[in-house]
Amino acid sequence: MSAVREELHALVFDVFGTLVDWRAGVARDAAPFLKRHGGRTGGGAADAHAFADAWRRRYVPSMREVIDGRRPFTRLDILHRENLLAVLPEFGIDPQSVSAGALDALNLAWHRLDTWPDVAPALARLHERFVLAPLSNGSIRLLVDLARRNAMPWDAILGAEIARTYKPAPEAYLRSVEALDLRPQQVCMVAAHNADLAAARRCGLRTALVLRPTEHGPRQTGDLVASADWDFVAPDLGRLAELLLAD
Amino acid sequence: MSAVREELHALVFDVFGTLVDWRAGVARDAAPFLKRHGGRTGGGAADAHAFADAWRRRYVPSMREVIDGRRPFTRLDILHRENLLAVLPEFGIDPQSVSAGALDALNLAWHRLDTWPDVAPALARLHERFVLAPLSNGSIRLLVDLARRNAMPWDAILGAEIARTYKPAPEAYLRSVEALDLRPQQVCMVAAHNADLAAARRCGLRTALVLRPTEHGPRQTGDLVASADWDFVAPDLGRLAELLLAD
Repeated sequence: MSAVREELHALVFDVFGTLVDWRAGVARDAAPFLKRHGGRTGGGAADAHAFADAWRRRYVPSMREVIDGRRPFTRLDILHRENLLAVLPEFGIDPQSVSAGALDALNLAWHRLDTWPDVAPALARLHERFVLAPLSNGSIRLLVDLARRNAMPWDAILGAEIARTYKPAPEAYLRSVEALDLRPQQVCMVAAHNADLAAARRCGLRTALVLRPTEHGPRQTGDLVASADWDFVAPDLGRLAELLLAD
Repeated sequence: MSAVREELHALVFDVFGTLVDWRAGVARDAAPFLKRHGGRTGGGAADAHAFADAWRRRYVPSMREVIDGRRPFTRLDILHRENLLAVLPEFGIDPQSVSAGALDALNLAWHRLDTWPDVAPALARLHERFVLAPLSNGSIRLLVDLARRNAMPWDAILGAEIARTYKPAPEAYLRSVEALDLRPQQVCMVAAHNADLAAARRCGLRTALVLRPTEHGPRQTGDLVASADWDFVAPDLGRLAELLLAD
């Protein structure tokens, strides 16, 4: 067994994109909403996947204000809600014309996402040997809802809400490692995003890239390959489990 | 179904005493330590249960400094370690004569406690309907270790470490409710201690007393009955599950 692997005690996971297919899930819930409210893109009916992409595009900039200290820690549900109001006009919908209840219900689409098919069996196997926790920008409640829906066997919910800041701020990683009372090299960050792993590595964590080449749809251009010599690289979580659990 | 019950979404649990038998677990691990280091009580060999009681007795005073703001938040493992150094002389052991490794190992006795026999089956049943989390003064890592040892199906680890203060400070309860994104009346505090429930009720949570008449040994005098009209009172966790899950 490799020295890196032997030292590992916990695996911490990015969630959006790495474990759950946010694009399909948001599009599924947005489609009837867009239809009901007359959403439009260009000349035709709004495309629900384009809507999911547009909503998601506002994710990083909205967290940046918190990371930079220009705004106190604000949970992702609230950022999602603000971003929803901002994105609706791009699809021809006046947010003022939609009831608050309908907006809240659509906002909860992020709590109703499904895991990629390889996730549940791989997490179950990994849980026998490792402490498992999400290290996500999602709120505790959101991650609890996703875990209950998808039977994700988390030992604890770590990440942004306990650190009171967002990835890639170092505190998000370091506070999660501290909560596990481990040294950074005993914890491996698992993500489909090279930038997440680069930030984790700067904090001393081990790194594992799981490829999700259709996270952003069939024409994805980023994160198709490893951008650095991560400790582990795997085409899916099942294969990563084999790498980590092999004798 | 009662109105109180219908509103409940999550159950949060005291752990030491309510779910795990800390006295028996600490005594089990302390017995060989006391023998090896020549522990004495009065004229004879040290009693491991008396040692567990004495160690535990320093628990509340040590947290009080944090609750009162005289000391920054300090995890329970560190308080336990300090209290261990303080209690050893009472049993005729000079802490300076014991290796740091042996002290650290004994300190981890609190991570190796076993649940009362009714806990595992009741939590499994309750998990089907309710979000479950510890709302304990234990650290995240300690609660993860206890959960993995005893198969406690937590959805998240709440309590002191995410609130950065200890029960019965209101923030410990309110921060945990906030992390679940629920209203206090949607959350029920389950504990074997009337004082814990009184503090939870002051924060608006629902309350359930589970009796643990031998937590402090066969001559226990406190918490043998409900001191107020808690929402639920049960002789063990199995019976509480029946109350909460009955149609």
